[in-house]
Amino acid sequence: MSGKNIFYAQSGGVTAVINASACGVIETARSHLELGKVYAGRNGIIGALREELIDTSLESDANIAALRHTPAGAFGSCRYKLKGLDENRAEYERLLDVFKAHDIGTFLYNGGGDSQDTAHKVSQISQESDTPITCIGIPKTVDNDLPITDNCPGFGSVAKYVAVSIREAGLDVASMCESSTKVFVLEVMGRHAGWIAGAAGLAAEQEGDAPHVIVFPEITFDKAAFMAKVKDCVDKFGYCAIVVSEGAHYEDGTFLADQGTMDAFGHAQLGGVAPALANMVKEELGYKYHWAVSDYLQRSARHIASATDVEQAYAMGKAAVEFALAGKNAVMPTVVRESNSPYKWHIGEANLGDVANVEKKMPRDFITEDGFGITEKAYEYFAPLIQGEDYPPFKDGLPQYARLEKHLAEKKLPTWNE
Amino acid sequence: MSGKNIFYAQSGGVTAVINASACGVIETARSHLELGKVYAGRNGIIGALREELIDTSLESDANIAALRHTPAGAFGSCRYKLKGLDENRAEYERLLDVFKAHDIGTFLYNGGGDSQDTAHKVSQISQESDTPITCIGIPKTVDNDLPITDNCPGFGSVAKYVAVSIREAGLDVASMCESSTKVFVLEVMGRHAGWIAGAAGLAAEQEGDAPHVIVFPEITFDKAAFMAKVKDCVDKFGYCAIVVSEGAHYEDGTFLADQGTMDAFGHAQLGGVAPALANMVKEELGYKYHWAVSDYLQRSARHIASATDVEQAYAMGKAAVEFALAGKNAVMPTVVRESNSPYKWHIGEANLGDVANVEKKMPRDFITEDGFGITEKAYEYFAPLIQGEDYPPFKDGLPQYARLEKHLAEKKLPTWNE
Repeated sequence: MSGKNIFYAQSGGVTAVINASACGVIETARSHLELGKVYAGRNGIIGALREELIDTSLESDANIAALRHTPAGAFGSCRYKLKGLDENRAEYERLLDVFKAHDIGTFLYNGGGDSQDTAHKVSQISQESDTPITCIGIPKTVDNDLPITDNCPGFGSVAKYVAVSIREAGLDVASMCESSTKVFVLEVMGRHAGWIAGAAGLAAEQEGDAPHVIVFPEITFDKAAFMAKVKDCVDKFGYCAIVVSEGAHYEDGTFLADQGTMDAFGHAQLGGVAPALANMVKEELGYKYHWAVSDYLQRSARHIASATDVEQAYAMGKAAVEFALAGKNAVMPTVVRESNSPYKWHIGEANLGDVANVEKKMPRDFITEDGFGITEKAYEYFAPLIQGEDYPPFKDGLPQYARLEKHLAEKKLPTWNE
Repeated sequence: MSGKNIFYAQSGGVTAVINASACGVIETARSHLELGKVYAGRNGIIGALREELIDTSLESDANIAALRHTPAGAFGSCRYKLKGLDENRAEYERLLDVFKAHDIGTFLYNGGGDSQDTAHKVSQISQESDTPITCIGIPKTVDNDLPITDNCPGFGSVAKYVAVSIREAGLDVASMCESSTKVFVLEVMGRHAGWIAGAAGLAAEQEGDAPHVIVFPEITFDKAAFMAKVKDCVDKFGYCAIVVSEGAHYEDGTFLADQGTMDAFGHAQLGGVAPALANMVKEELGYKYHWAVSDYLQRSARHIASATDVEQAYAMGKAAVEFALAGKNAVMPTVVRESNSPYKWHIGEANLGDVANVEKKMPRDFITEDGFGITEKAYEYFAPLIQGEDYPPFKDGLPQYARLEKHLAEKKLPTWNE
């Protein structure tokens, strides 16, 4: 570390516990007197380019502690991917200029695969400059698709949300199916990996429990097999509760409901597979249906967060600071699972170069042979990740979330031309 | 009461707390030795017609107690409206035959306006027969649209769910709006009355908090005014979080998203106004959007139920039994509000004839002048109803809900020809 200050940024889609990682970073840095300030990027890495650095030293201890139970990205996040070094070296140089101007020697980047790629590149280019920067990744993604780490902070809470939700909605449909809705479809996130959809399977404890059918992005959608499964389920149990991943697709790769728009990373923006699938069932089998799309509700549902997830998110933030203090560079703390029952884990590390741009999908043996459920192996993997409740404080019936001051550090450089 | 047994049935769309009313009925009946058994209709009133009576005396005390924290309709509900007396007198006579065969003197009907109408008719016709039945309604509807009662069990919990959800999703959008989603639309239930949409307004404590715009069914949708409001909001706060009632409609009565299908009561089946509205915003203003449709999740979300709602639901069930014991007939217990702060209420009563088929809408002075928000008066009305948390027990990370035995009483009559 050449500078004594830390730059921390949140990146990509937020989660129920990314602020718990921020809390881990800031509280740990505050406990080390040899460290300077933690600056947080206003709206993520964009804040570094614009030299909009939130001075977290001006936030009260109580406010920082409240981050642990506050969902979404308290400092602002962004969908902004730095281009390759050859394409836009100027962006990387600007980052280094801002870091140098604010005596920043450590860059902690809290995000998914794209973000770990960026942190890796910053690390590489800074080694060639006179201001080497320690770059540590902090894992975050609801999709649970990062490699190496056993699981990813943010996932356990969305897993708990979808399992709780399908259990509750399943009871609702079961109540009504004799004379009304027989098929219910819940759409969940998971662009290419079915971890979230799979975790919904935790809700089923006995035969006949919801969810009865899970549609994974890892399994090519077979309409005939799907319809046969739904019909069989309605015949047997009177109703069918379905969980479908937004990434469910046909053999040619077409999503079941492709909106045809792209996000900033060039990924197709999805949504609407639930109504598409529900309509398909109505046409083929004639059942009355209902559908739900949780969208952001699932990833921001801090009120039903997994205590395990909160603990791990905090621990990852803490470990990132400790890694930097220990002289490590271009690495990311990971969760290493020791055992399922009792659940034991410790912190490991991965090289950023190995994490960047790799998507970890559900192993085939986590999915039942017919492709519509989870196996015992998957159950054992998922179960520990949703353990424990960690309710936020409530006031007047509503959860109380942190409201930060977000004072910006004084600018020292010319304005950045975006 | 001519017979010593009670028949209890759940009707219409279920809620997070209708089983708390069932718990109140059964626990209260068990405490009165002069009363016989409580039979519950399997799948509601259909169970009476089919002589499918669940003998609740065979359920353990623990299972009955667990109903208090179990969402949906544990005995099964139905969307089945008895026709008028002139059109189908046979159905009413069948009910009376079944009641007589099982020594049932009291009919407790747990439902909304349609159900109170049915209970009222059963009461009327039974007076003309040799087996008068005591008919007591138990209010239930997430829509909060029953008259006379200050509020309706089921509503407080869905109100809490939507307020918590839009607060959390609002923080998510606020985090991302600089470079990504700027408009978020959450669709909530409420066919003709905007109580649920309005309650979402509780989430906004300070200027700039979500939700920024509420679209009510009570206010004709004015597209130009709506777009101006959304644009103003994005300009001011960077993003706009919208809550829209499924019943939002244009001046000619067309719903913003009419699926064109009807439910058993002849009501249009709605759904999909969120994507419709989001697309409209994209076309008019060009903002990137996301949308969510909670559907059944909102009304089954027992994990985030309002403690006040649970308490009132239980109290209504208890009161219904006590009313019957006191010799009352053709009435429904109600919530009578004494004061907002501190919140005080007591149990009143309404004649079923006054409750049946009346829809209580949001008063105009609960909605701001521009039609897109709630007033202080509305806030004072809503606030007490979401107070307190009443978490269900959790095991292995998931809420544990009652699994009843549901043993049917032996049939004594010929099969009913439906």
